[in-house]
Amino acid sequence: MAPQYAPSLRSRLPPIAFLLETVFILFFVFYVDVSYVHSIRFYAEFQDVHVMVFMGFGFFSTFLVRYGFSSSGFSLLVAAMAVQWAIVVQTLLHLPYLGRMRLTIESLVFAEMSAASSLIAMGVVLGKTNPVHLLLMSLMEVAGFTLNHWLLQTLLKVKLQHSLMLLHIYGAFFGIMTSWTLGKGIEPRHEKEKSDRKMALFSLFGTLFLWMLWPSFNSLFFSTIAQINIICSTYLSMAVSAVTAIAISVLSNPRGKINMLHVQSGILAGGVAVGATMSTFPLPWVAMAVGLSAGIMSTLGSIYIKPLMQIVFKCHDTCSILSVYGIPGILGWFVRLFLQLANSDSTTVAVRFAAYHITILLITLASSVTLGVITGVILKLKIWRPPQDRKCYDDQAFWEFPHLAERK
Amino acid sequence: MAPQYAPSLRSRLPPIAFLLETVFILFFVFYVDVSYVHSIRFYAEFQDVHVMVFMGFGFFSTFLVRYGFSSSGFSLLVAAMAVQWAIVVQTLLHLPYLGRMRLTIESLVFAEMSAASSLIAMGVVLGKTNPVHLLLMSLMEVAGFTLNHWLLQTLLKVKLQHSLMLLHIYGAFFGIMTSWTLGKGIEPRHEKEKSDRKMALFSLFGTLFLWMLWPSFNSLFFSTIAQINIICSTYLSMAVSAVTAIAISVLSNPRGKINMLHVQSGILAGGVAVGATMSTFPLPWVAMAVGLSAGIMSTLGSIYIKPLMQIVFKCHDTCSILSVYGIPGILGWFVRLFLQLANSDSTTVAVRFAAYHITILLITLASSVTLGVITGVILKLKIWRPPQDRKCYDDQAFWEFPHLAERK
Amino acid sequence: MAPQYAPSLRSRLPPIAFLLETVFILFFVFYVDVSYVHSIRFYAEFQDVHVMVFMGFGFFSTFLVRYGFSSSGFSLLVAAMAVQWAIVVQTLLHLPYLGRMRLTIESLVFAEMSAASSLIAMGVVLGKTNPVHLLLMSLMEVAGFTLNHWLLQTLLKVKLQHSLMLLHIYGAFFGIMTSWTLGKGIEPRHEKEKSDRKMALFSLFGTLFLWMLWPSFNSLFFSTIAQINIICSTYLSMAVSAVTAIAISVLSNPRGKINMLHVQSGILAGGVAVGATMSTFPLPWVAMAVGLSAGIMSTLGSIYIKPLMQIVFKCHDTCSILSVYGIPGILGWFVRLFLQLANSDSTTVAVRFAAYHITILLITLASSVTLGVITGVILKLKIWRPPQDRKCYDDQAFWEFPHLAERK
Repeated sequence: MAPQYAPSLRSRLPPIAFLLETVFILFFVFYVDVSYVHSIRFYAEFQDVHVMVFMGFGFFSTFLVRYGFSSSGFSLLVAAMAVQWAIVVQTLLHLPYLGRMRLTIESLVFAEMSAASSLIAMGVVLGKTNPVHLLLMSLMEVAGFTLNHWLLQTLLKVKLQHSLMLLHIYGAFFGIMTSWTLGKGIEPRHEKEKSDRKMALFSLFGTLFLWMLWPSFNSLFFSTIAQINIICSTYLSMAVSAVTAIAISVLSNPRGKINMLHVQSGILAGGVAVGATMSTFPLPWVAMAVGLSAGIMSTLGSIYIKPLMQIVFKCHDTCSILSVYGIPGILGWFVRLFLQLANSDSTTVAVRFAAYHITILLITLASSVTLGVITGVILKLKIWRPPQDRKCYDDQAFWEFPHLAERK
Repeated sequence: MAPQYAPSLRSRLPPIAFLLETVFILFFVFYVDVSYVHSIRFYAEFQDVHVMVFMGFGFFSTFLVRYGFSSSGFSLLVAAMAVQWAIVVQTLLHLPYLGRMRLTIESLVFAEMSAASSLIAMGVVLGKTNPVHLLLMSLMEVAGFTLNHWLLQTLLKVKLQHSLMLLHIYGAFFGIMTSWTLGKGIEPRHEKEKSDRKMALFSLFGTLFLWMLWPSFNSLFFSTIAQINIICSTYLSMAVSAVTAIAISVLSNPRGKINMLHVQSGILAGGVAVGATMSTFPLPWVAMAVGLSAGIMSTLGSIYIKPLMQIVFKCHDTCSILSVYGIPGILGWFVRLFLQLANSDSTTVAVRFAAYHITILLITLASSVTLGVITGVILKLKIWRPPQDRKCYDDQAFWEFPHLAERK
Repeated sequence: MAPQYAPSLRSRLPPIAFLLETVFILFFVFYVDVSYVHSIRFYAEFQDVHVMVFMGFGFFSTFLVRYGFSSSGFSLLVAAMAVQWAIVVQTLLHLPYLGRMRLTIESLVFAEMSAASSLIAMGVVLGKTNPVHLLLMSLMEVAGFTLNHWLLQTLLKVKLQHSLMLLHIYGAFFGIMTSWTLGKGIEPRHEKEKSDRKMALFSLFGTLFLWMLWPSFNSLFFSTIAQINIICSTYLSMAVSAVTAIAISVLSNPRGKINMLHVQSGILAGGVAVGATMSTFPLPWVAMAVGLSAGIMSTLGSIYIKPLMQIVFKCHDTCSILSVYGIPGILGWFVRLFLQLANSDSTTVAVRFAAYHITILLITLASSVTLGVITGVILKLKIWRPPQDRKCYDDQAFWEFPHLAERK
């Protein structure tokens, strides 16, 4: 391993990928079938989520000037693996009841949402890891998220739609703890951790796909009648948080200039926050107020909390995941609590619900934080051939460039 | 205000944005509710229009080499504000009848179409204005368009689908009059008013989204049976105008070379023109002939009329909006007249329809031209801190670049 | 014709384009009508295919560093012409039965699939041809493909869904034979046949659109119940081939680095291969195994077979079309044979089916190879003003750049 070259992944990535694929295919031979009963009512919305996961999350993180291939390519690798793994884990959990899993569009949607959760986690450590790290991390995250989801559904009788919207919180805190344990990127701003005009536009492209299709993401598991409410609320909440993100970015700059990366962090907050409140069917103005608060908190977070975390907690967060998904997710969770309390008649019911609601959050946080730390410890092992610090945020470590023109 | 810096918007944009959002949210508290009765039949088509407005119009204008952040970012800001404002204006107009507005997917579609109209207007003044200008302009445009639409529906009993397709004409002439009154960009070609290979590709991306999804845009408010006709007609018309735009671009160049910006102007013309004829359900060949004529007129317009307007009328049109939306819109309007006349049996009915049809157009033109001039006068006020001429078409005036790499 | 300039297409492209458009419109006047009976059940899936053809195929080939305008612009031109021409050819073939053609969404889908087939063929010769070549080639290809499809349906009673999935094989071999006959690009690697970071990302964008929306492409002509099977199978197959493509790319590089162009070639293989097997409704694991094999073969093909073809057979394949569409298509065809044989009870039936199935493939190959050679001979004529070898892979030969900034 010559010091001037990045460690080769030839002996790591392909064996792991082919081993996993072989195991998955064998598992599918024995346990997975296709359903013929369900309608494909979901299909258009499923496609929206599919585009969000592979195009949206894939290009969301392409802003790093020398890391565009890695951001988009590794997202594809991780998400493609995560959806298969999510189906395997789902099937394992349902085997005792169902014998064989019968795939439906719903199963794919669930798999996509798990993949989204692991892509959120991946956003924290991006640039400081190699694709083997990212694959392992996503296996852990998807397993943890699915297990947590199943436990909440089984033990606490949490509804599917309610529990699923914890994916943002789960992914964000999992990723942050992994990054903290890994302890990379904590030195002052890395020279290559920059953007440029065109990479930021690619990133805006991805972000806009997430932003535009978010109503489908939030409404997927609801009945047709409820969907209108959810589509309208998510739509309005995101419109407000887009305006808010730009306004806050202007306000926080001494010369009144907008920072594209702060905007990209802030505009999604409304969708994340309102997602968690969906099962209470908020009124339009509530959704807008949530979008406003989430937009403010998220944009301020990516401006002030991100550097603070790096200095104080020695925890580096490449895509400001804490601000984009973590904080708005928790905000939404408490808004839902508040809305439910405001609607309840008796104090006993209200207190019981509050305890129940906060317990769900705490279980989820505990599970994601613990698993994140464990994953970080595993990823620190030298056998995964981590990239040198010099090669962080650099495609050259993983991608072949001889076919590329020297000077554009 | 040091002369070498662009005037800061810190004291303008955030207060206006937050004031508006607060007013909107308060308005929604009292007057807007969610409907539970309607089906979500519209949803897939609505998403297409949503993508057109935010992705299509947003990236349509990213061709300016140093103005990519502004083109896409300000479109997002303006559109996100315009959809909320359009719902407010709609609600105000319907309050006397309905008490509270009940949001449906249709309301959102109408809001998106109003936003599209204001983004069309914005394309004329892009690069010569700041985001505060654009926000104010879009508020005026959406209010004017919605009011005009409501007047035509109420007083002249114009059908919804018929009146809605005036959005291109309304936006185009509104924008042109604003630009003319504003009187910016009339000097010979600005040094920064250029494109480059990659920015033109981003712009083609946006244009293609508009182009591809236009059948949904035209068919949205029709019954299921009529939709097939409209989808096929729009589809064919746009295919013909894409071919035409490229052919005309080759023909107009002495050395037979294609100009990407002329192509982007021409390919949308078929969809705009045929949109106005939709309520007569034209035969496929009629739609194709309309696409051919619109493609020719629109491409020639962006090659010859745009510079002429700049020299003769001292009116600068950044994105050739007159040619892309104005001319094809008016062409379509007269094609519809002609088709209706060809189908009518008696001369009296025909004459009456012609008078009625042209009155609608004249009212719309008068309304958009008047309001455009008024808006231009308002935007000329120094309190909005207009960008210096030197800083036109330059992101540096509004966007922070320290986080960006110096060289590529 | 000064030697330092590329030959002008001013006297070639516009006359051909306008002549064709006039003929098409006249044809539509007499023979094409709109249907009012069909539902628009297909519309969301149709839009997916529409996006695949115009955005996906259009940007799939933008990786060439100096050929982005041509790749995307000529794809638009060719596809817009091909869909109209496909409707004309379809109508001609159905005239004896139907009198007038009645357009439905199905007709448009068929037209899009024919256009996709001709865009596949175009990928082989891209960069070594001018747009007049590409137009002629696409007219020949669409006519040949539609005729072959009609013959198979009429004479051999092949099912629509079965015969349509031959489009990949037809397009690939047609294009390869055209390129071989044309005999361009066979010298060692052309200096301009390179990519750069941003062009490769544009290309990844296009590829991802193809990749994401492929389930719609494969499922379009099946009943609702069958669609779930096909969507799930295509989805899983593509997920596996995405992982495989990346793993093989790492494995084939001595230093374990990924090549973005190889990945883009490999990730689509699963969708192509599994498309041909769809009418046997494979189990999920079969689809995944097909995706794995197709991914391996396709990625290896683009690494090793492409240069071999260039050296040994003097046949240059710009976008590795043989590996991306040809090989996976044939693999899928044999998998379908194998699946059918495994399901059949009697040997007689099995042998008869095998003979029938292989006959279909051979007829298709013979037809595409023959027509490809004929097309190549026609394209060699000097009257089409071929680009000089120096100007291959260069936008400068066809696009006007004075409006562009000199240095980005």
